[in-house]
Amino acid sequence: MSWKMRIHDWLAAHRAEGTELLRQLVRIPSTQGNELEVQRLVAERLLADPGWEVDVWEPDGETLTEHPDFCSERNRFDGSPNVVGVLRGTGGGRSILLNGHADVVPEGDRQQWRRDPYGGEVAAGRLYGRGASDMKGGTVSLLLAVRAIRELGIRLRGDVIFENVIEEESGGAGTLAAIVRGYRADAALIPEPTNMRIFPKQQGSMWFRITVKGRSAHGGTRYEGVSAIEKSMAVIASVRELERARNARIADPLYAGNPIPIPINIGVIEGGNWPSSVPDRVKLEGRMGVAPEESLGQARQEMARWLAGLAASDPWFAAHPPVLEWFGARWMPGSLDPGHELVRVLSDQYREVLGTEPVIEASPWGTDGGLLTSLGGTPCVVFGPGLARKAHHPDEYIELDRVFEAAEIIALTILRWCGTEEGLAR
Amino acid sequence: MSWKMRIHDWLAAHRAEGTELLRQLVRIPSTQGNELEVQRLVAERLLADPGWEVDVWEPDGETLTEHPDFCSERNRFDGSPNVVGVLRGTGGGRSILLNGHADVVPEGDRQQWRRDPYGGEVAAGRLYGRGASDMKGGTVSLLLAVRAIRELGIRLRGDVIFENVIEEESGGAGTLAAIVRGYRADAALIPEPTNMRIFPKQQGSMWFRITVKGRSAHGGTRYEGVSAIEKSMAVIASVRELERARNARIADPLYAGNPIPIPINIGVIEGGNWPSSVPDRVKLEGRMGVAPEESLGQARQEMARWLAGLAASDPWFAAHPPVLEWFGARWMPGSLDPGHELVRVLSDQYREVLGTEPVIEASPWGTDGGLLTSLGGTPCVVFGPGLARKAHHPDEYIELDRVFEAAEIIALTILRWCGTEEGLAR
Repeated sequence: MSWKMRIHDWLAAHRAEGTELLRQLVRIPSTQGNELEVQRLVAERLLADPGWEVDVWEPDGETLTEHPDFCSERNRFDGSPNVVGVLRGTGGGRSILLNGHADVVPEGDRQQWRRDPYGGEVAAGRLYGRGASDMKGGTVSLLLAVRAIRELGIRLRGDVIFENVIEEESGGAGTLAAIVRGYRADAALIPEPTNMRIFPKQQGSMWFRITVKGRSAHGGTRYEGVSAIEKSMAVIASVRELERARNARIADPLYAGNPIPIPINIGVIEGGNWPSSVPDRVKLEGRMGVAPEESLGQARQEMARWLAGLAASDPWFAAHPPVLEWFGARWMPGSLDPGHELVRVLSDQYREVLGTEPVIEASPWGTDGGLLTSLGGTPCVVFGPGLARKAHHPDEYIELDRVFEAAEIIALTILRWCGTEEGLAR
Repeated sequence: MSWKMRIHDWLAAHRAEGTELLRQLVRIPSTQGNELEVQRLVAERLLADPGWEVDVWEPDGETLTEHPDFCSERNRFDGSPNVVGVLRGTGGGRSILLNGHADVVPEGDRQQWRRDPYGGEVAAGRLYGRGASDMKGGTVSLLLAVRAIRELGIRLRGDVIFENVIEEESGGAGTLAAIVRGYRADAALIPEPTNMRIFPKQQGSMWFRITVKGRSAHGGTRYEGVSAIEKSMAVIASVRELERARNARIADPLYAGNPIPIPINIGVIEGGNWPSSVPDRVKLEGRMGVAPEESLGQARQEMARWLAGLAASDPWFAAHPPVLEWFGARWMPGSLDPGHELVRVLSDQYREVLGTEPVIEASPWGTDGGLLTSLGGTPCVVFGPGLARKAHHPDEYIELDRVFEAAEIIALTILRWCGTEEGLAR
């Protein structure tokens, strides 16, 4: 029986167990700062197999914050450990780094959920809950893939480094900490929810804050003030225009199917402090997408120049320019040649398992792949189960079939990439 | 020497003392819940004259909240007393109720202040600080007027009821509590900052909250979600249209000089909780002006109907109608015939003291006058020193000359209205 069939059968035999593991992970609301329980569970799974060297550590905020690529709104990671497991190869093969993240974004307005966001309910082949797609499902694919390899007694030539990191949702401080700790490999794979598409390029992104000024007045004579809310509407419209201008320049065929390859999302608005007063200040916070071949600095400059242009259309902005800041999360863009060997191996296994041609695109969102590729020297491809369009949404879910298909494709990719002592024909 | 001259001279002699009293009051940041120190100071001033029966009480939240016209976001008033003083007349005269408020709105963004908002600094004849115009200046005019009358030994025939209330800025619960306690009179005067204009009509107003829904999505694929911020821009534009439609109907000559007689102010915006997520909810809070002859209920209904109209222009709103709520502050509109006797007496004294014709208008904002007139059965006129356009603003100030002129006009008005034992020619 071929390894492909054995792996397939092993995964079929462990379907209930894999589903239960995903349910357990989803039931833990591992938002930023609350990752400990997930990390304990993941570390336990690795430690059950003595072949893994397991490294669990809380990143040292003091050292990490000084790194030029550090970004997080917190500088202490007590109680928020990274988990890394290393499976040593027998030698002579290529190493692979598998990277998942433990953190999830908050569930948002609970009234918009028809399912318990931390229930892990299964219905019609879907498992529901915050993090099901982003990216506990992908993490389970990785854990199943490496366990199948181990339990089937396959001896890999190259090393496997499995990472489950913190802080992906806020800028990659967890992956940065793992890079700084020395973890690197010949290539990397991140099973973010690409809906089984292969992303050799990752959009970068970063968070911005725009402060818009007004002039306070009594609401009953509001015409004597200047509403920062009304002025912020002009700023929002201008940001929309900037998004249009930036996306009009994107010609990369990997973005062909994407209506807005590098979007600018305004995620938070907050202004005024009294219903009867004209608001004197509005804060906007959002996320700017950065093209794979663009630098974060270039994108920053373009937005700053664009907002400066508001002064020409409204003298208020000339006297009170909106204040632009960059804060919090930031994901470095990453770009791998679509002809890279790992993309080829992964595509082959995709065809083998699913019998169809894989879709190869550029990711519509940032991942830790940019850091791995650009900073860590570990060329990274993103491929995983789950739907990005359900990630960060109410009623996030993942189709369980995809979790197991991804596990099979990833297991076979590891075999091909790392090489085996046993030969692959067997 | 005429009473007019004696009062004028008394006020001139007490200019430094009156200014110091105002400074003391402004130095106390008596925002909602923090009125105690101001009320202690005012009560002490009254108690210094044994002629006043002084009533200091914390309104009983339990009883008050059940009143149909109660409105406040709090239901306990511990540490927030009302102060009322009653000066009994010798009989046979008309009574007058003088109403000031102790509370001030928050100072807002301190960076926009060039003066300390609670400094009470005096420069070029102006006294600066939050509450200087709204309405500690007016309160000082009242205190000076009644003290001049007392110290000059004038015996009034009618009663004088002096009130310094809490909660004016959040809907009049303080004045309501005084009405419920039984304080009423033949007429009332409120020295809110009309800039020495006479307002027989008061615009009513009330607070609203509009919740706008969106659908969350990852910011990198924001086209898969619906931004509650973008939808709220449509709602804000629609509210602006409603304001235009409502004001186009106002033909009252008392509003002739006012660009927006009954404005709708959006004072607070808040939505989204993550820069990288499409926001699924935005909350707008504001203040709707209500015409003197309109009821609060009519205005509420008009806004509800108007917002329902959004569904016609955008199917999103048909499926997810904005939710309209009325909360917090509410000021009943009030309307006095401009030919009312108190308006006549006040106008006469204005001419006497200032030698010019008074401006008679409708107030561009709500006051407790609506409650006094409509609920308390005490016809109320609003007239006072200070600038409404500086109220609720950074660098709020009052011109000290106006405080003393208003005190003189009010003192003479009290004499004429209440009648004196001594005769007015003396």
